[in-house]
Amino acid sequence: MATQWIDGDQAARELLARDDILILTHQGPDGDTLGCAYALWRALTALGKRARVECPDPLPERFSYLHQDCEAPAFQPAYIMTVDVADTQLLGDLAERYAGQIALCIDHHSSNIGYAEKTFLRPAAAACELIYEVLKKLSAPITKQIADCLYTGIATDSGCFKYSNTTADTHRTAAALFEAGADYEQINRYLFDTKSKSRVAIEQQVLSTMEYFFEGRMAVILITQAMLESTKADESELDGVSSLPRMIEGVEIGVTFREKAEGGFKVSVRTTSTADASAICGKFGGGGHQRAAGCRIEAPYPEAKRQFVAVCEEFLPQSK
Amino acid sequence: MATQWIDGDQAARELLARDDILILTHQGPDGDTLGCAYALWRALTALGKRARVECPDPLPERFSYLHQDCEAPAFQPAYIMTVDVADTQLLGDLAERYAGQIALCIDHHSSNIGYAEKTFLRPAAAACELIYEVLKKLSAPITKQIADCLYTGIATDSGCFKYSNTTADTHRTAAALFEAGADYEQINRYLFDTKSKSRVAIEQQVLSTMEYFFEGRMAVILITQAMLESTKADESELDGVSSLPRMIEGVEIGVTFREKAEGGFKVSVRTTSTADASAICGKFGGGGHQRAAGCRIEAPYPEAKRQFVAVCEEFLPQSK
Repeated sequence: MATQWIDGDQAARELLARDDILILTHQGPDGDTLGCAYALWRALTALGKRARVECPDPLPERFSYLHQDCEAPAFQPAYIMTVDVADTQLLGDLAERYAGQIALCIDHHSSNIGYAEKTFLRPAAAACELIYEVLKKLSAPITKQIADCLYTGIATDSGCFKYSNTTADTHRTAAALFEAGADYEQINRYLFDTKSKSRVAIEQQVLSTMEYFFEGRMAVILITQAMLESTKADESELDGVSSLPRMIEGVEIGVTFREKAEGGFKVSVRTTSTADASAICGKFGGGGHQRAAGCRIEAPYPEAKRQFVAVCEEFLPQSK
Repeated sequence: MATQWIDGDQAARELLARDDILILTHQGPDGDTLGCAYALWRALTALGKRARVECPDPLPERFSYLHQDCEAPAFQPAYIMTVDVADTQLLGDLAERYAGQIALCIDHHSSNIGYAEKTFLRPAAAACELIYEVLKKLSAPITKQIADCLYTGIATDSGCFKYSNTTADTHRTAAALFEAGADYEQINRYLFDTKSKSRVAIEQQVLSTMEYFFEGRMAVILITQAMLESTKADESELDGVSSLPRMIEGVEIGVTFREKAEGGFKVSVRTTSTADASAICGKFGGGGHQRAAGCRIEAPYPEAKRQFVAVCEEFLPQSK
């Protein structure tokens, strides 16, 4: 059964007509899916409806400010919806229970598979931009708390307006949220200017492994199990670290070797020029996109690196 | 002679009535002063006027995209103006020649001393926001090149919309510049996601000196002359490095010891809580603001650090 694609107006009319609404987020919850869910929860509650948020995973401590005052009533859901969820697989442990019953999906991923009865999809930097549109059409007051939720989602997914997914509309929505009282100073400091001690520690260790090849056109870093153990850094702290090589001036191929607990390496490649990351990783049985791809190599580090560097040389465009 | 404070309308009328316009930037030119100058140069030139930009210092290579196609005609200036210049002292070597003849100043610093005949001053994240207002009033077409210049200034001075000086208007102007074709993806990558090899190298060395005190409430890093020599990092690359300690979760006092070529240390202190950086530095004959201050200490590193840590303890608020 194909989904019915609807617009923001229709999504608002759906919500106005319903009650006892269950809002589902995706697994590994981030600022956008949680910002959507709690903004919507607050608005629906203010409109006198019963609503509740469910997330397949525990809520991360760092986003606790989004929901610290939310007390959800107990009720049997009569209407189930998802926010920022492109595929029911992303519902994790909740998929089995709810996957076939999603009445409404509000999402910004063009990869959305159309699993819900009705889907409001629009490409945007963040799903929170769509929620803002729906809340306006619901004539819900944009309170400071709602503005904080929506700003968090937009800032998270646009890299604070830095990524290429940012549009003029993203900035216009941010302007409206500033005027609604969003505490952007605190939120920005919290999201972008705060590093954990373990992140700083692992960054130092990883930077010490940095090697350059081909006159600085390729950079390689290594993250070992020993580094993870000694610094107690977790998965989410490694994201920023892996993007370091491609940030370096002149680097066209940035590579991160990550030692797996079971041995061997997960290799992630980011390119900034015409070098095709997906083709490079294809040589090792992996794949991905032109600018970002990955593969696995089962060999000791010096040998794994030697093989990988040799292949990358073929893919580096000839010097101008 | 006091300045006449004017608004954007009046500034636009001034410019419409004049020709042979010399535009001056401040010394140590950044994205905002240069973005202002070259946006204005392009708009005035498009309006059929003769204009020229002068900067007290050589133009940094990294901002060459702002002016690469600008060919300024030779002329004797009939009207001299400044952009983003709070004080004639910031005109550096050009101060002596021009300081007494500035007809118009367009600036966003509330500390502006009012040195020009007429001053259009409005607090904003960037002076480029004021230039945008003036160009609209001039009915100058906002070309892609002008949008690139203005976006560069706004992104630079607002830390890509992250700093507390960002307002709803800042976002609205950004939206308009996106629609005028600003190449924000390239500019953002260039301004915020590019690090030099020397910056990465010195960051690694400096991070390896990180020490925590008082259960992680204070963090100290050291930058030595040897590090500067071995990495060839320059002054501008140290700015970001010095802000690292205060970015760490839980740190209330972040301190950077910077070894001077002539011996001894320049100490910079950033605080995030009620600890008074200015009072701490006052104990060593320095000063500054509550959140950011500095001083000098003439002693070998272990002794200098010991003295400094001891003083900081007095200023750390009692644990809650």
